[in-house]
Amino acid sequence: MTNSSNIKTRKTLDVIQPYSPGKPIWEVQKELGLDRVIKMASNENPLGPSPKAVKAIQESLADLNRYPDADASVLRQAIAEQYGVAKQQVITTNGADELITLISEAFLEQGDEIIVPSPSFSEYDFGAHIMGAVVKQVPFNEGFQYNVDKLLEAITEKTKIIYICSPNNPTGTYIAKKEMARLLAELKDILVVFDGAYSQFADEEDYTDGLEFVAEGQPVIALQTFSKIYGIAGVRIGFGIASEEIIKSILKVKEPFNVNTLAQIAASAAITDTEHVTASFNANKKGRNFLYKNFERLGLHYTETTANFILVQVGPNGEDIYQQLMAKGIIVRYGKTWGLPEHIRVTIGTDEENEFFIDTLTEILNPLK
Amino acid sequence: MTNSSNIKTRKTLDVIQPYSPGKPIWEVQKELGLDRVIKMASNENPLGPSPKAVKAIQESLADLNRYPDADASVLRQAIAEQYGVAKQQVITTNGADELITLISEAFLEQGDEIIVPSPSFSEYDFGAHIMGAVVKQVPFNEGFQYNVDKLLEAITEKTKIIYICSPNNPTGTYIAKKEMARLLAELKDILVVFDGAYSQFADEEDYTDGLEFVAEGQPVIALQTFSKIYGIAGVRIGFGIASEEIIKSILKVKEPFNVNTLAQIAASAAITDTEHVTASFNANKKGRNFLYKNFERLGLHYTETTANFILVQVGPNGEDIYQQLMAKGIIVRYGKTWGLPEHIRVTIGTDEENEFFIDTLTEILNPLK
Repeated sequence: MTNSSNIKTRKTLDVIQPYSPGKPIWEVQKELGLDRVIKMASNENPLGPSPKAVKAIQESLADLNRYPDADASVLRQAIAEQYGVAKQQVITTNGADELITLISEAFLEQGDEIIVPSPSFSEYDFGAHIMGAVVKQVPFNEGFQYNVDKLLEAITEKTKIIYICSPNNPTGTYIAKKEMARLLAELKDILVVFDGAYSQFADEEDYTDGLEFVAEGQPVIALQTFSKIYGIAGVRIGFGIASEEIIKSILKVKEPFNVNTLAQIAASAAITDTEHVTASFNANKKGRNFLYKNFERLGLHYTETTANFILVQVGPNGEDIYQQLMAKGIIVRYGKTWGLPEHIRVTIGTDEENEFFIDTLTEILNPLK
Repeated sequence: MTNSSNIKTRKTLDVIQPYSPGKPIWEVQKELGLDRVIKMASNENPLGPSPKAVKAIQESLADLNRYPDADASVLRQAIAEQYGVAKQQVITTNGADELITLISEAFLEQGDEIIVPSPSFSEYDFGAHIMGAVVKQVPFNEGFQYNVDKLLEAITEKTKIIYICSPNNPTGTYIAKKEMARLLAELKDILVVFDGAYSQFADEEDYTDGLEFVAEGQPVIALQTFSKIYGIAGVRIGFGIASEEIIKSILKVKEPFNVNTLAQIAASAAITDTEHVTASFNANKKGRNFLYKNFERLGLHYTETTANFILVQVGPNGEDIYQQLMAKGIIVRYGKTWGLPEHIRVTIGTDEENEFFIDTLTEILNPLK
């Protein structure tokens, strides 16, 4: 007999950093004994889920004893139509998180390298570490702007994947279309994962969601999610669009029933919910301008965003401000996770949430007024 | 620029066999133009989902814009109470499928070996192949009975995991408690994954669901699922119970939001739905006896089952019988997947489904009567 503690894990697990999610509302309510807690920490849609998605779920609860459609046929077809691609170019996953892991499993051998901008979404590193691959972080330019030259310099013979997160989480900055084209022109046999989770909030003229490069036959996979503008983070559904060959490779490492039935149904409805998408886009723009104006009034430096969150520099006592906001029932993300101890990242909320946040922040920064 | 087809996948992907799921009802309806199609192919609960689970989902649709609880706190606590273990001994996953992959990611290096009984659930092989590990298949004894000696003989220095599926899918046979204890006594530093997905259907006195060995501190992880007796396969929720150390290792490779909100809510309700579980257990027993009696009448050899499906030998024209059943609107699983071309595996259905299946099978086998 062996004691269970004798079972050894893989060495590569030692480098995996646990993900630190935004605290859930109920947890803060319970811990701090607060009635009203608002969450501006996880870049969720403050208007709520797509009403069409909720209705579709309500009408589909009788058959939950059945396994989901392993092929996600209806949903993949709906996505294909929306983006003007073939169904075989689409893979659906248990959130875009799972897609990042599957891409890592399909393409990364031990010792391979990936290039990620820094700071960015931590799941890219996670996927690489699971496969024993090495992460090379390339810092942004001043103001968190993409630097294609630095990305290119980081390439070695072992580089297999470059991640581009645009709009980038947590900075809100994006890569210009021309710069993306320049990057791709220089690459040889390297897959570019273009994470456009926040693309529906971006309306800059030189913004790209990566799809045009997929259409050109470039080695690009465009990552997308239903967790942001569509507002159904709770059901877990992300997807990727790439060439048929790339999708076929990733499908090989996909578990058959990775996307649950209700997610398939909800997403198929949400993708047609233009009313909800438009309302969410407009509310975000309005909230963004309101927050900009007030950050300026408070003398706080912020990074202009193309997404539904803002990275704002609150100063040397960033952690204290983060904690004080929490104590007053506002959950934001503290920047230390990304090596930015003077910053917080705040998700743009409803009008009411934005006002409450600004009032509270003003109170914290100017206690005597 | 690189063409997307220049991107090379990992070599190990070549050995991955695509999973062949039971055909969905709508697909057979569409392909064959049938009104009535019944599915006895995926070992789902024919009585439907737990009504408590459905009700819980209905009451929880407003907050789907929020990410799930990454800790699955409420559900893990409910499972811990049900099984008399600590919450830290429980991991919840996107179906037990995902747990198998996570176990592989946590413990298998390239070149390591796993031992699986054969024929059994194909996802064990899948998980190993993703990690570049080698699968050693150990055949059952006559009548698909577990042979612990043969399992022990298959061990080498590279063996990291032994899978025990009990009741075994697709045979319905199980490993006796004493034999399991004998196996464990001989092992050194090898993890045993005890897949008890169908354990709630087994009531043999010498059956074990593996939990008692976890309690002893043995290197065992007990796999469980809500897809079978609880009837919520569609929402995807499985779990594992082991020592805190083993669970902690597996949590390292888990994506934060792997279990969707509705699955957490549904499972927390389903686990308390003793009425549904009892009704499902009783219906299964009744259906099993009805099918046994009729297989005997038809002169068909079957394997006695401890689960909710029966492996039955229909003879040399097995594929034809499988196809004829499909043409008449009954989906079962053809045994060729498991190297059993003379067998089909049929999920025990409702009374009505079982009768329709037997009437149709009788017609196919005795066309002149």
